[in-house]
Amino acid sequence: MINLGLIGCGTVGSGVIKLLNENKDIITKRVGQPLFLKKVIDKDRVKCLALGITEEQMAASVDEIINDSEIDIIIELIGGTETAYQIITAAMRAGKNIVTANKDLIALRGKELFDLAESNKVDIYFEASVAGGIPVVFPLKQSLSANNIKEVIGILNGTTNYILTKMSSEGLPLDQVLKEAQELGYAEANPESDVEGLDAARKIAILSAIAFNSRVSLNQVYVEGIMSIATEDINNAKALGYVIKLLAIAKENENREIEVRVHPAFIPYDHPLASVHNVNNAIYIKGDAVGEVMLYGHGAGQMPTASAVLGDVIEISRNILHNAINRIGCTCFDEKTVIDISQLKSEYYIRMTVLDRPGVLAGIAGVFGNNRVSIATVLQQVSRGSLAELILITHTVKESDLRDSLLILKDMSIVSEINNVIRVENSK
Amino acid sequence: MINLGLIGCGTVGSGVIKLLNENKDIITKRVGQPLFLKKVIDKDRVKCLALGITEEQMAASVDEIINDSEIDIIIELIGGTETAYQIITAAMRAGKNIVTANKDLIALRGKELFDLAESNKVDIYFEASVAGGIPVVFPLKQSLSANNIKEVIGILNGTTNYILTKMSSEGLPLDQVLKEAQELGYAEANPESDVEGLDAARKIAILSAIAFNSRVSLNQVYVEGIMSIATEDINNAKALGYVIKLLAIAKENENREIEVRVHPAFIPYDHPLASVHNVNNAIYIKGDAVGEVMLYGHGAGQMPTASAVLGDVIEISRNILHNAINRIGCTCFDEKTVIDISQLKSEYYIRMTVLDRPGVLAGIAGVFGNNRVSIATVLQQVSRGSLAELILITHTVKESDLRDSLLILKDMSIVSEINNVIRVENSK
Repeated sequence: MINLGLIGCGTVGSGVIKLLNENKDIITKRVGQPLFLKKVIDKDRVKCLALGITEEQMAASVDEIINDSEIDIIIELIGGTETAYQIITAAMRAGKNIVTANKDLIALRGKELFDLAESNKVDIYFEASVAGGIPVVFPLKQSLSANNIKEVIGILNGTTNYILTKMSSEGLPLDQVLKEAQELGYAEANPESDVEGLDAARKIAILSAIAFNSRVSLNQVYVEGIMSIATEDINNAKALGYVIKLLAIAKENENREIEVRVHPAFIPYDHPLASVHNVNNAIYIKGDAVGEVMLYGHGAGQMPTASAVLGDVIEISRNILHNAINRIGCTCFDEKTVIDISQLKSEYYIRMTVLDRPGVLAGIAGVFGNNRVSIATVLQQVSRGSLAELILITHTVKESDLRDSLLILKDMSIVSEINNVIRVENSK
Repeated sequence: MINLGLIGCGTVGSGVIKLLNENKDIITKRVGQPLFLKKVIDKDRVKCLALGITEEQMAASVDEIINDSEIDIIIELIGGTETAYQIITAAMRAGKNIVTANKDLIALRGKELFDLAESNKVDIYFEASVAGGIPVVFPLKQSLSANNIKEVIGILNGTTNYILTKMSSEGLPLDQVLKEAQELGYAEANPESDVEGLDAARKIAILSAIAFNSRVSLNQVYVEGIMSIATEDINNAKALGYVIKLLAIAKENENREIEVRVHPAFIPYDHPLASVHNVNNAIYIKGDAVGEVMLYGHGAGQMPTASAVLGDVIEISRNILHNAINRIGCTCFDEKTVIDISQLKSEYYIRMTVLDRPGVLAGIAGVFGNNRVSIATVLQQVSRGSLAELILITHTVKESDLRDSLLILKDMSIVSEINNVIRVENSK
């Protein structure tokens, strides 16, 4: 028998309780022994009891769980970075294995926690912290582990993918779609962490650390959200053969430096990620041997996340039963430089409003040319009175050069406004 | 140091040798110790030597590898079911762990080999036997192991997916596309195992056994190939909002019986599998907790397959280093009935040529009605002289009822020909 302690009876916690009950038989057979939920705690006792947890299972304190010598694995599902950190570190020091869905904490202090796990000879697993029920942490550490991973590109936030999908399929403006998404429960009342890209940033920090065997901390991730995306951008993307997605991108270059960034991007309509719609998530991985692989599914939700949590619990249980804790070492054995976004080389889509008169395009092209920004496509849209909308796609250029050009252009009298700049993700 | 023995210097074998060399550093770090290719054998010695294998590494016989007490893992890459069976069973009896890409053998005698591995306390891993480099065996056994798997639907054969993609995108007939595929090396000179569905059948036999924890032998898989697919069927599918794919389908019903079948099928154009194009493979999995997950990538090829082989080698190496062999038990602890295709309940597309005169449709509908086959959609196409092409889609009906109807219709004077019958996979 493997004894579990559960901290948190919220959405995912109650999913874990439900799944442990409903799939008891198959889980027992797959582990070889039954899993028993010995102790549970939550600020809200009543919530746990309503889920069928008995008075006997209810712990009086977190310490009671940590100090219970019969408990093998503690499942942390309270989220946040302060209390959860205290609990997890104390539990690991007490010899407990950890399963967590806490992306904030792993993105912030992953390396420290993995080191602590190793020195205390316990496992800390966190498949549920990225992309809900989609297996991705394990595949990177196991099936794909003979590869040098070259890039990981994720659609890692369901809310923003839903919003962009609806904007594209129904031609609606962002604020209207966001409001509908909030009404449907697909977006939080305070959607900031989603629409500003921070949620996706945490997840790509975790995935890039695994993929590139290096520590990547959240503040090294460049982040832009989707709030600037207008219906015009969606339509222009379509006209040019692209789809706009909020991508979380991690790549290693030939100097073994890595770039980690979250921002809206044009992606060719025939790229596997382009057909990931609505609240679905996907992770596209390129390895030097395997080529391209994509893992797709529900990136959030009670039961998908519970599925990932219990997948980890089952794996640690197998390790316990075979005395094989720390079987998979920390993948953070390298120290790679994370390059600044100004050093990025990319193609860019630029939508700007300019004076509608002869010579303007030449003037603009001149500024780009002087700053080493070469233009691939020019799409001049219909004029609006004395103004015209100008759509450009650049060749691959350095972001700092593009920014220099735009700073100059912004102050020129022939340029009324630089409406939007969106990176084009063309690598395939 | 983990010592390896390699049997077979063919396409995949040479990929394994190449990957072991090129990614030596990262593999060593991920395992914690170096992997050393101690002995290699192939009928064609020269081929191995050309790959950089030294005379010292060349074994004089398979027995030399099996009896080498320093070798921990034997990689079997010769394929076929006779010699490979002899080698693998002898090696396991001698205490060697096995990694194989041999789908024929695993589909045919998997259960027996897994039992033998358990009783000899060795591991036999076979990720490379299904869908090349795409992680699927591991995810089913690990990350998704808290789920009751409800269905697995795969596009598991690259050749046929390439043919169907080209037929659809370019409107070309099958024989022409097949010829081109052969010229491009996407299809074998003798393409029978691919186009007749047998290759996909082996893979779905392996996957369904894992997904449903039961033995599924190859002869329990119902198989139909793609040779009957005409340009008209491709066009009709499109007009009705579907795509035709060769699907390998495994499902468990509410009575815990399973169905395992390979055949061309209509699939809605917005199903995740519908956008899997060309030689790519994908596996769509539905679990009771995780919902839908899809794993996508290159399903064959030298380096993707070598990636899967070495992923397995790395995992077994970790087991060896932690004395945790047999950590994941055999998943064949249940015995489920595989139902006969006649008991299948499905929707069907039927294309038939009938007399073009009043009352014919009523006559045909009457036969279907008398046999409990209810029609959902009728699409009468343009007439051809005295004949007309009739396209029908049924509601969900029993296959035996459909077959009874067709037997009667075939002999009726108003029916000139039943051109094609294709199952419609509408579950999502």
